[in-house]
Amino acid sequence: MTSPIPNLPSLQQLPEWKRFADAAEAASVRTNDLRILDAAGINVDITGQVASEELEAAGQALLEARQFGQLRSTLLSGGIANLTEDRAAWHTVLRAPAPIADVAAERQRMNEFVRQADSERRWRNIIHIGIGGSDWGVRLAINAFGYAGAWRHVRFAANIDGHAMQGALAGLDARETLVVLASKSFTTAETLQNGQRAREWLAAAGLENPGEHMAAITARPDLAAAWGIPQAHIFKLWDWVGGRFSLWSSVSLTTALAVSSDVVAGMQAGAAAMDNHFAQAPFAQNAPIQMAMAGVANRSVLGYGSLNIAPYDFRLAHLVPYLQQLDMESLGKSVDIAGNPVGVPTGPVVWGMPGTDAQHTFFQWLHQGSDGAPVDFIVCQQADHSWPDHHTSLLANCLAQREALLNGKTFDEAQQESLHAGADAQHAPWLAKHRVHAGGRPSSLVVLPKLSPYTLGALLALYEHKVFVQSVVWGINPFDQWGVEYGKVLAKGIVQELAGARPGPDEGQRHDASTRHWIEEFRKS
Amino acid sequence: MTSPIPNLPSLQQLPEWKRFADAAEAASVRTNDLRILDAAGINVDITGQVASEELEAAGQALLEARQFGQLRSTLLSGGIANLTEDRAAWHTVLRAPAPIADVAAERQRMNEFVRQADSERRWRNIIHIGIGGSDWGVRLAINAFGYAGAWRHVRFAANIDGHAMQGALAGLDARETLVVLASKSFTTAETLQNGQRAREWLAAAGLENPGEHMAAITARPDLAAAWGIPQAHIFKLWDWVGGRFSLWSSVSLTTALAVSSDVVAGMQAGAAAMDNHFAQAPFAQNAPIQMAMAGVANRSVLGYGSLNIAPYDFRLAHLVPYLQQLDMESLGKSVDIAGNPVGVPTGPVVWGMPGTDAQHTFFQWLHQGSDGAPVDFIVCQQADHSWPDHHTSLLANCLAQREALLNGKTFDEAQQESLHAGADAQHAPWLAKHRVHAGGRPSSLVVLPKLSPYTLGALLALYEHKVFVQSVVWGINPFDQWGVEYGKVLAKGIVQELAGARPGPDEGQRHDASTRHWIEEFRKS
Repeated sequence: MTSPIPNLPSLQQLPEWKRFADAAEAASVRTNDLRILDAAGINVDITGQVASEELEAAGQALLEARQFGQLRSTLLSGGIANLTEDRAAWHTVLRAPAPIADVAAERQRMNEFVRQADSERRWRNIIHIGIGGSDWGVRLAINAFGYAGAWRHVRFAANIDGHAMQGALAGLDARETLVVLASKSFTTAETLQNGQRAREWLAAAGLENPGEHMAAITARPDLAAAWGIPQAHIFKLWDWVGGRFSLWSSVSLTTALAVSSDVVAGMQAGAAAMDNHFAQAPFAQNAPIQMAMAGVANRSVLGYGSLNIAPYDFRLAHLVPYLQQLDMESLGKSVDIAGNPVGVPTGPVVWGMPGTDAQHTFFQWLHQGSDGAPVDFIVCQQADHSWPDHHTSLLANCLAQREALLNGKTFDEAQQESLHAGADAQHAPWLAKHRVHAGGRPSSLVVLPKLSPYTLGALLALYEHKVFVQSVVWGINPFDQWGVEYGKVLAKGIVQELAGARPGPDEGQRHDASTRHWIEEFRKS
Repeated sequence: MTSPIPNLPSLQQLPEWKRFADAAEAASVRTNDLRILDAAGINVDITGQVASEELEAAGQALLEARQFGQLRSTLLSGGIANLTEDRAAWHTVLRAPAPIADVAAERQRMNEFVRQADSERRWRNIIHIGIGGSDWGVRLAINAFGYAGAWRHVRFAANIDGHAMQGALAGLDARETLVVLASKSFTTAETLQNGQRAREWLAAAGLENPGEHMAAITARPDLAAAWGIPQAHIFKLWDWVGGRFSLWSSVSLTTALAVSSDVVAGMQAGAAAMDNHFAQAPFAQNAPIQMAMAGVANRSVLGYGSLNIAPYDFRLAHLVPYLQQLDMESLGKSVDIAGNPVGVPTGPVVWGMPGTDAQHTFFQWLHQGSDGAPVDFIVCQQADHSWPDHHTSLLANCLAQREALLNGKTFDEAQQESLHAGADAQHAPWLAKHRVHAGGRPSSLVVLPKLSPYTLGALLALYEHKVFVQSVVWGINPFDQWGVEYGKVLAKGIVQELAGARPGPDEGQRHDASTRHWIEEFRKS
């Protein structure tokens, strides 16, 4: 590492921050002032977020003070955007229409692999082994476009818990199965251990060459080759591809096998279109920027601790964990790139569930809980099934919940309702107090014309860039994840102790009494 | 409704509240003072929560001031625990070893139905249609005990989104399929609409009597019978069974068909054992009470906005949405039973994911994010697979993450680590700032001897009672959900408008500009 240690003014000492915070405090949701942005064919309605002309101007000035233009260029051109790891974060080139030669070559190799497998009708079953970024994107895409089944049957094994692998293998015929290992470092504990179980299973089925039934996506092809996986089954990752952005790489081999290479290409095209929008649209029309500034206002000024993701689409169930990782692993940090405390609350808890399930699970809390949370509603204008009544209901529920959160229900309305429902004059005011909705809860509404690979790709890139803009405001490096490393190191030590090794004097002392107790207890098992 | 309007002193004016809040502020996590409770065979380790003798005494006094003993008796004896709906919340009787006759009779009817279906090897496929409380508990149990497949193949359709039903029907043979409708009111929009699609599908397959291929669990058997469902296929619910507690009723018919009646009986037995523990264990040993008081301290005093659920067990993936509903629908309220504002933050956001997946998704945020969240770690001492290395790793990861959250990593440790990893003397202190873990983040550790129906039942009842105790402190009715109703009413109106009806002048005005815009836009689709 030779780059100079970055210097960054403290956010709270910037006059532009003070101006933005003051403006956000003073702003309000102006429900009659429509703000709907068109980004790569997606409509992003931010009417439900706080707004004012001053807030708009202050936001723009804040981004300028944070040298946003320059940082965006560095990101999109493959410069060193990830300073603490001294490398680029160039996932955008993976989806560029005309990428660098190395990327184009891997794309072509992957498509050829899939074409050949399809023409031979090979690999009826796929076991996809990866975790975190090597897992969620593939699940998301396959659920989105293969929700009603597909010719190939895909199982996932991510968790180190052996029940995951047991479930993934159950009932499959090894002769028809391809095991896909996705790990950039090819050292991910979960993926290698699960991969070993899969290889044993292939061997136990009497296959002469289990390696022929495996494929790997990794930045360490040498390590994959040492597993006996043939070169033609090994696809390259680059060290500048972060795990949570690896969906755009050959990690999508499983997606292509399950729901076609066209899906992968379509997602890449949609994401590339969003990259263009992000690079070029002016501040006021730039959807990732506007969503990000609303996010900063909600989080760091108005004090909302979480962000609810409500896809009103059954097919997007995996969007929630996908965005949890993207947002929380990127922004779950409290020091800025210079190493100083950011000083304001950073990334929120991201959580959610598809509507209308979510309505019957936790919308009670959103409407009447003490905190509330901003909600990102996501919905498709057109459906891909033949029951228009269902789609009308889905759209209506999405609009109704958003309206209820925004506008609330007053005590008088609630009292009328209670009387109408048969309450007597004594109980009606009391019941009404339980039926009031405060309202004024902010939300965005993201409308896709329909769920296609293109619109899903654009949607994911929208959130990627939103997260990036927030990182620029907070001064955070969104591309590292030092907080993930420490627990792994501790776990290695405890594995040794559970296996019977007595800890060294330093380590034994290090554990608290409760951890020591459970190590003793679990050792007996 | 004839009962008097309840009177309840404001929490914040209670001296006992002030004492509790002061004690919680002053308390700290005492990692060397083990606090491990034994509850119905489950170990609950609360060593990682703030504690002090004064906090313990203050908590007990606070519960007494809130008349906890009396309210618990009302709950467990089937008294009017749900005041705003003027009825009992008597789910505990559903799992009692010797329940009331009506409950015993339905249990017997369900078991007989399953026994007969099994003996005839009927119903190879089940489509379970229900939403929220009629859905999550069944999914949870079937995933927990049928994760590696079972003879019967179960599909779920909950969401009104037609893609859900399309996916549920795809590829099934109607002649081998039983459609189970679960709806207490038999008016739940999603369940009835999806049920209609299922009935059409049965009829389209040429079945003479589609009703013979359906079953219903409902408090309105008359409405189910009007669908042509035979009496022998209709199982009774009672109006005093809340949706989020209906797992203990015949809603578990699908569970019994999928993974056996023994699973259902075992879960009931475990829950009943936890009911006993809750009723009888003294304050300091009472696990639901102790978890609840930690929850109140974390939420209302220490300011944590969310609670993370981390089951270190792949089979418990659905525990998270189950607990989201249980906790957030019960405690997502800000007025007390008298109708006054509670005045302190109430129920948190509940979110999570099984570890180790969660480690690769959002643990970065838990370790280094600006807010942090208390974590409930849940793990099984024994596994049900044959790869001990995997289980050792799983246990070690669980303990390690908890230890890292509790104890953190200092700047000096982080600097040593950076130097060790090859950083030069100039960069090492800078990198170290990015690697520091604050520590001091509270957690509980719940250890099941193994995952059995009995321990899972006990675990769910543990959380039910924890939620109940919190509701008593906050003075909230945990058994109503008025916030769910309003959006449904609004949605009905918007369905009409999307279908072409012009809104009445009042309604049209009521919508904000953005809602009006999207109604116009979606009407074109």
